[in-house]
Amino acid sequence: MASIKVFGSPASAEVARVLTCLFEKDVEFLLIRVDNYKGQKRMPEYLKLQPQGQALTFEDGKLTLTDSREICRHIAEKYVDQGNKGLLGTGTLERASIELWLQTEANSFDPPSSELVFNLAFAPLMGLEQDEVVIQRSRQKLNKVLDIYDRRLQETRFLAGDNFTLADLSHLPNAQRLVSNNKCSSLITSRKKVSKWWDEISSRPSWKRVVEMQQEPPPVI
Amino acid sequence: MASIKVFGSPASAEVARVLTCLFEKDVEFLLIRVDNYKGQKRMPEYLKLQPQGQALTFEDGKLTLTDSREICRHIAEKYVDQGNKGLLGTGTLERASIELWLQTEANSFDPPSSELVFNLAFAPLMGLEQDEVVIQRSRQKLNKVLDIYDRRLQETRFLAGDNFTLADLSHLPNAQRLVSNNKCSSLITSRKKVSKWWDEISSRPSWKRVVEMQQEPPPVI
Repeated sequence: MASIKVFGSPASAEVARVLTCLFEKDVEFLLIRVDNYKGQKRMPEYLKLQPQGQALTFEDGKLTLTDSREICRHIAEKYVDQGNKGLLGTGTLERASIELWLQTEANSFDPPSSELVFNLAFAPLMGLEQDEVVIQRSRQKLNKVLDIYDRRLQETRFLAGDNFTLADLSHLPNAQRLVSNNKCSSLITSRKKVSKWWDEISSRPSWKRVVEMQQEPPPVI
Repeated sequence: MASIKVFGSPASAEVARVLTCLFEKDVEFLLIRVDNYKGQKRMPEYLKLQPQGQALTFEDGKLTLTDSREICRHIAEKYVDQGNKGLLGTGTLERASIELWLQTEANSFDPPSSELVFNLAFAPLMGLEQDEVVIQRSRQKLNKVLDIYDRRLQETRFLAGDNFTLADLSHLPNAQRLVSNNKCSSLITSRKKVSKWWDEISSRPSWKRVVEMQQEPPPVI
């Protein structure tokens, strides 16, 4: 029986990030999805366990974590000898570069992507008003940060160097959401190097598997 | 927070039976789905917790049950004052009739339906050989039992009398599977009274919700 437990839905960006890392590392785990129903209605608010409105809890034996990037670091460090062995780089310098880009993702890429996709894609579905100010501001921020990415990717094939690492992996869930919406996909596709990088990282079997899980119905017995 | 927990997938007939009952009774609950992954592969065998190859566990506070019909009785008895109040009938006589038809469902309708649908629908999907002997035998048994149903439903609108009860509810998951496969749907649709009864019970909002859940992808956050 797997000792690792992931509580959450693959549809969550946070959960998707962790699943991709587990697949890259070929680690066995249990995925546990919890939904609250009152009568026939699913209560989505139950899922909002975390401050960011995300529902992710990770258990590895007695260790419990809730931050997706911290969980990815833990998996890559603990299961160093199996699956993809390059996720944390090969030396101190590369590790430092990975950390830098992980922080850029968390602080500069993730927040405006989440806000933009929420307003463009989810708000209409939920019957909420789209906030034009937020949409404009998020676009500006993303244009700025993705210009930096494009320049960086002229020098190196991946963000932290020549290999796919946690730094790239961490971008997958929100980059996928940007690309999947025709009102913002050009943020990625209009930038030559960013676009090539996206094609490469999004074609990894680990990520394709997560996208499948986001789309598939629950298993049939 | 809901004190009732259902562990399993709505795709399972056992779980679907319990969900329908919870929806009829308008009871709040948590649905918990557990999947085991090894690398990118989901391991379906993990789901086979029960002797019949079904995965269903039900917790209500400190009470744990695994038999779907026993769980339905428990829900209908404990939550007597909410939702559909007629699931267990209105007197000793009706309750006895409900029990009789519940047992007929469990002993005479469920086993041949499951065997037939497994061989006609699931075996090909799983790359297993279809067992023609089992298919023939299941058909014969179902023809016999559904003839009895058709005669019964000439006398009463539902199996145990004039109202929809647990006896009818319990048939929904496997009757749906029979009707959904064009190689065996006529077992239901060719019988005038059974067909009318099926149309009526399968159009209940509780059951339609379960069918939706069997088809829907996991929730988006």
